[in-house]
Amino acid sequence: MTRINENFNKLQAGYLFPEIGRRTRAFAEANPDAQLIRLGIGDVTLPLVPAVIEALHAAVDDMGREETFQGYPPENGYDFLVDGILEHDFRARGVALDASEIFVSDGSKQDSGNIQEIFSQDATLLVTDPVYPVYVDTNVMAGRTGEADEAGRYAGITYLPANAENGFQPEPPAERCDLAYLCSPNNPTGAVATRENLSRWVEWARSHGSILLFDAAYDAFIQDDSLPHSIYEIEGAQECAIEMRSFSKRAGFTGVRCAYTVVPRALRGQGPNGEPVALRDLWSRRVATKFNGVPYIVQRAAAAVFSDAGRQQTAEQVAHYMENARLIREGLQAAGFTAYAGEHAPYIWLETPTGTSSWEFFDQLLERANVVGTPGAGFGASGEGYFRISAFNSRANVDEAIRRIQAAFG
Amino acid sequence: MTRINENFNKLQAGYLFPEIGRRTRAFAEANPDAQLIRLGIGDVTLPLVPAVIEALHAAVDDMGREETFQGYPPENGYDFLVDGILEHDFRARGVALDASEIFVSDGSKQDSGNIQEIFSQDATLLVTDPVYPVYVDTNVMAGRTGEADEAGRYAGITYLPANAENGFQPEPPAERCDLAYLCSPNNPTGAVATRENLSRWVEWARSHGSILLFDAAYDAFIQDDSLPHSIYEIEGAQECAIEMRSFSKRAGFTGVRCAYTVVPRALRGQGPNGEPVALRDLWSRRVATKFNGVPYIVQRAAAAVFSDAGRQQTAEQVAHYMENARLIREGLQAAGFTAYAGEHAPYIWLETPTGTSSWEFFDQLLERANVVGTPGAGFGASGEGYFRISAFNSRANVDEAIRRIQAAFG
Repeated sequence: MTRINENFNKLQAGYLFPEIGRRTRAFAEANPDAQLIRLGIGDVTLPLVPAVIEALHAAVDDMGREETFQGYPPENGYDFLVDGILEHDFRARGVALDASEIFVSDGSKQDSGNIQEIFSQDATLLVTDPVYPVYVDTNVMAGRTGEADEAGRYAGITYLPANAENGFQPEPPAERCDLAYLCSPNNPTGAVATRENLSRWVEWARSHGSILLFDAAYDAFIQDDSLPHSIYEIEGAQECAIEMRSFSKRAGFTGVRCAYTVVPRALRGQGPNGEPVALRDLWSRRVATKFNGVPYIVQRAAAAVFSDAGRQQTAEQVAHYMENARLIREGLQAAGFTAYAGEHAPYIWLETPTGTSSWEFFDQLLERANVVGTPGAGFGASGEGYFRISAFNSRANVDEAIRRIQAAFG
Repeated sequence: MTRINENFNKLQAGYLFPEIGRRTRAFAEANPDAQLIRLGIGDVTLPLVPAVIEALHAAVDDMGREETFQGYPPENGYDFLVDGILEHDFRARGVALDASEIFVSDGSKQDSGNIQEIFSQDATLLVTDPVYPVYVDTNVMAGRTGEADEAGRYAGITYLPANAENGFQPEPPAERCDLAYLCSPNNPTGAVATRENLSRWVEWARSHGSILLFDAAYDAFIQDDSLPHSIYEIEGAQECAIEMRSFSKRAGFTGVRCAYTVVPRALRGQGPNGEPVALRDLWSRRVATKFNGVPYIVQRAAAAVFSDAGRQQTAEQVAHYMENARLIREGLQAAGFTAYAGEHAPYIWLETPTGTSSWEFFDQLLERANVVGTPGAGFGASGEGYFRISAFNSRANVDEAIRRIQAAFG
């Protein structure tokens, strides 16, 4: 009989969001009249902006005419999109990259899950805790960890707690690790790294020969222009960091699917004989072998995000969600909760009431307020005692959710 | 310094199609006046059919309205598409599957590359040779093979030659292997497996506890309705086979990106303690962790392929390409070539002239006829001495390519 990948057996019960889905469906079936408000999974709610809709219609028409029809997309993205990325996401912030360093993809979840494939099987890992589960689970499946302990921490991974005591910005450790996953603005805590925070990580990585895997999927929510959007705004980062970016949250593309990964040419790993190897070339080979590009119509839609109208319209969407975030944070604080973040990220990170676990609070919030959130423990052991509320919803639903939470818990 | 995945170093120079691209670009730059006709990579040329274009426009409008906007797609596909797949691709051919066994994806290349992740690191592999390179290369990258020999065969893979002597249908071997990759209609040979051929593979897999990985991306080109489109038309296949299907070729979706994988609930692998494990659950976990669904608009487009108009219009496209295939096969034969296939597949598989290697013939065809094809050796050692010509092009280009080939080689 053919044996399975036994590493799958190490995975903890259910990936977080399917488990939330199961509990929510069970509650909804038992309470068919309850009007649930979903502030759990970080999914956008506003429709695509007009500039994107126009671009999609035009691209669909292109696909219907022989002269403009597009077959297989270029594996790494069309120039019309890559040029927009280089200009608006990097040159505009003083970062020089070239087209060969950009890899357009169908999602940062995929990219942050697949990037580990180009590294050695015994690469050592570091994550901040709580953490987006994909970073950890994909390494578990690849066999880079041992079993999980009772708190859910896998043997072989260094977890750096991010909590109120350190302002949700853990310092780099004394020892080295091969790969360090960082995320700013952070999912789930909503904390944002300053230039100083990132500089310390770049310094650590360069002094140890480590690689930073920097997830900037939420950069569009940064409200203070002096904060870095890209790790490449830090001197020396092109020699130690891979960056992942997405259109999902910045332009409401969760159902459209477009993202990209940056692997600078200057970035090196070590080959079997100790020789330096360009990680960009490994990733390019991985993409050429296991991916077939992002749909033409989707890339046209993403390119429209960089048009004048697209930038203005998506900025208005971001402003809508950030006003939601402010209302939620202040509403929770008025109800007596200790609530963090929501200033440069669409997430509020609150402390659960003393003695209440985060999954207990998930059930309480669902039962008493019919609001769906995300338990901090789902993001790692150090997420216990915390809870994530997403700002992705209509204003009416946000207002109603705050009203219900204040009535139930205030 | 962080070490790389050393298995990447085992990969042979350049994935086939990038190498063809490099040679073609070099020729075009040196011969700017040459009018190249590309019959190399199997990429469609006809625009999307009207039923699909209409569905795309409607789906784009859905994404622009708050009431109908769609965020994250269901990881395994929308019911409206899965229902169409179950009805038209399976029930219509007497195969009973349920929705939980269908996993909608962004491409069969991805699926056939990713499927190995759910199996043991030391799984033994079998491929027919020549072979779609993705099956082999993804296992090389995962570390399941040794180095390649001079002919390009990796240690640890069983290669079954498919050639004119065995009618391009190698028999299952005496020994067992954990995973056997099969493809029918075959890429690159264009050969199609009969019910009897597939029955022998199913019998082999069941008697050895092996898993068949069956790639049916080209099933729409089968012209004889008595030939199996799905391996599940063979009794017992749901207990030994995973099947991969695509909209790329059947509906011109290479630039739209939609496919699906079937993992029947009855299919089992062996867990660490010898216990049977449902492979469907492993694949579901893999998808939930490393994928985020296919765009809503793309799934609406795929569902439209199953409408009455969509089925009729895409059948006309297939008929166009199959008439091209007939013209190419007969044209090559008239020029003195020994040419196979092109009857149930959009590929003609021809023998290169005696003493001419397949890459030499690639260069000759490019230089003398300005036609781009695909060298058989790029698909494996047993592809040496053969050459693939694709039927995906306009009638005018096909006629011109045949005229040039006959003038240059006839």
